[in-house]
Amino acid sequence: MRAYDLSQKNIRQKKMISVCCGAFPSDKEAELAYEVGREIGRRGAILVCGGLGGSMEAACRGSKEEGGMTIGIIPFYEKQAANEFIDIVIPTGLGHARNNIVAATGDGVIGVGGSWGTLSELSIAFKMGKPVVSLGGWDVKSPTGKDEGFVIVNTPYEAVSIALGEGTGQLRNEGA
Amino acid sequence: MRAYDLSQKNIRQKKMISVCCGAFPSDKEAELAYEVGREIGRRGAILVCGGLGGSMEAACRGSKEEGGMTIGIIPFYEKQAANEFIDIVIPTGLGHARNNIVAATGDGVIGVGGSWGTLSELSIAFKMGKPVVSLGGWDVKSPTGKDEGFVIVNTPYEAVSIALGEGTGQLRNEGA
Amino acid sequence: MRAYDLSQKNIRQKKMISVCCGAFPSDKEAELAYEVGREIGRRGAILVCGGLGGSMEAACRGSKEEGGMTIGIIPFYEKQAANEFIDIVIPTGLGHARNNIVAATGDGVIGVGGSWGTLSELSIAFKMGKPVVSLGGWDVKSPTGKDEGFVIVNTPYEAVSIALGEGTGQLRNEGA
Amino acid sequence: MRAYDLSQKNIRQKKMISVCCGAFPSDKEAELAYEVGREIGRRGAILVCGGLGGSMEAACRGSKEEGGMTIGIIPFYEKQAANEFIDIVIPTGLGHARNNIVAATGDGVIGVGGSWGTLSELSIAFKMGKPVVSLGGWDVKSPTGKDEGFVIVNTPYEAVSIALGEGTGQLRNEGA
Repeated sequence: MRAYDLSQKNIRQKKMISVCCGAFPSDKEAELAYEVGREIGRRGAILVCGGLGGSMEAACRGSKEEGGMTIGIIPFYEKQAANEFIDIVIPTGLGHARNNIVAATGDGVIGVGGSWGTLSELSIAFKMGKPVVSLGGWDVKSPTGKDEGFVIVNTPYEAVSIALGEGTGQLRNEGA
Repeated sequence: MRAYDLSQKNIRQKKMISVCCGAFPSDKEAELAYEVGREIGRRGAILVCGGLGGSMEAACRGSKEEGGMTIGIIPFYEKQAANEFIDIVIPTGLGHARNNIVAATGDGVIGVGGSWGTLSELSIAFKMGKPVVSLGGWDVKSPTGKDEGFVIVNTPYEAVSIALGEGTGQLRNEGA
Repeated sequence: MRAYDLSQKNIRQKKMISVCCGAFPSDKEAELAYEVGREIGRRGAILVCGGLGGSMEAACRGSKEEGGMTIGIIPFYEKQAANEFIDIVIPTGLGHARNNIVAATGDGVIGVGGSWGTLSELSIAFKMGKPVVSLGGWDVKSPTGKDEGFVIVNTPYEAVSIALGEGTGQLRNEGA
Repeated sequence: MRAYDLSQKNIRQKKMISVCCGAFPSDKEAELAYEVGREIGRRGAILVCGGLGGSMEAACRGSKEEGGMTIGIIPFYEKQAANEFIDIVIPTGLGHARNNIVAATGDGVIGVGGSWGTLSELSIAFKMGKPVVSLGGWDVKSPTGKDEGFVIVNTPYEAVSIALGEGTGQLRNEGA
């Protein structure tokens, strides 16, 4: 047996961040998603999302522009349904149930904007015990008061920092 | 071929209501779930839920006390994990993804209490276009203002009426 | 709290048998599926299947003619896609992955005919450790010789007996 | 907006091959899986599998030794359950239903050895219309005679060629 080629072993060591966002965003939501994608790319994390259009596509475009890697977990069997900025397409055929896999795959989860599919992903990710951050959309606190709910942030930089489990440190001005 | 035996055909004609609620409720949440179950049983609808304990069990107990039928869509493969008031156990083995099937199976969906799994089910049911009612827990309005969000009600009677797609008509005092 | 109404508690005590079969059967396959459904209905078991047309519909028709109960676990979200002989529709929206739930739900599993979806269901049911019977179709033995593979039978009566975990006893002539 | 960085766009252009094989293989099965993995790595395709141990691990080790990329679609939520040669872990939490995603993700599918989970994956991949090749295990022909069934091959080189949709051309001696 040959010596183990380490050339891509670092992929496994990269953090994954799931970006939950809508297919039919407002311009502002899409712009935020794009900036979140860029920030994820700059930080060297892998971007995971639902793989379709709208904010999902914007986030992936941002990540690819910064040299990042992107994974699209799509609800259909047809890989071509994924947006063009997806590197790895997982064609689940599971319909809405693919949202759970998007939530499960990220080491941290960022919601951008206010679609209901996004809320389902953030909720289940929160239940899974992951860091869940919300930007420009859902601000949901538990009615039971048992926990703090989503972390609400104002910039893509903060969102990515918290999703990565880092302190937010010195915040940069993202202009977002 | 024999004539078609109609004896159970009316099962298909019954409405199904999904009750989304937690496994570790407060006493008040469990009591509400029990009353929702009773109301569903009285109205002759089939109760669908995640099939486990806590509020799920309380709702099923209520339904069975009124002669209703109950379906438990559980996350495990082991049928015995379902509570004792479940008539039909669907052992999905899908983990959290079974929430989507709970949401999809109800013709209407009622959330009771404030757990995060409940919120994921209500959110995806709302996206699916079903009537979604919340009782004693989540009061979530879309940050985009594009829609009305969950219908917030105060009694099990109202909850079941709206989940059945009926006008609430003359509200009874449920004492709940 | 009222006394527990036992009127439908016996549903949970009934055995469930999953019938795996194709949507585009030959006449002979559909006839076999129909006879399997009748036998399941006569034995008082609940018939579980993929809920669509062809042999699935034939099996359900047979069961209903004998007063049985039927569950259709369909790949779509639209309940109306289920055949008319289904009592309880579970609209999973999971595509082919719903096959796993069909396999998991039966206490025993019967394959009728030779479609590839059927083989996927029988294989995974066998892996789950359930009794798996094949009638008029797949005769698959493990290439490893580690196990016996599917039980091949010649009549619906035998198929249902083995799926129920019973000895086949005195075989009736099914004319099948 | 910056110019689009193409540095990893070629990932999407790579073919994906799903390797379906068991967690508890014989030595011969594991060796075959390892050689299949090496061949996939040499051809520049991405290897997809169920991500756990046994033959799955052997195949991934082979691929990594040749500089390939590997994706593990695992049945659990815990990423650490994936073998150490997986680059991208998709923690579905779906139990056996994850087999369907393994089948769906490959552009072609190779079965190695004779486990029942493998057969379920090959069967559903065949139904999906993908090239399905079997090596050292299942030799299943449809009882209906409507199709040819799995392509049975003798070497990893042939297996990968057919899974890639290529003619097998001049066969190399793989010594496998």
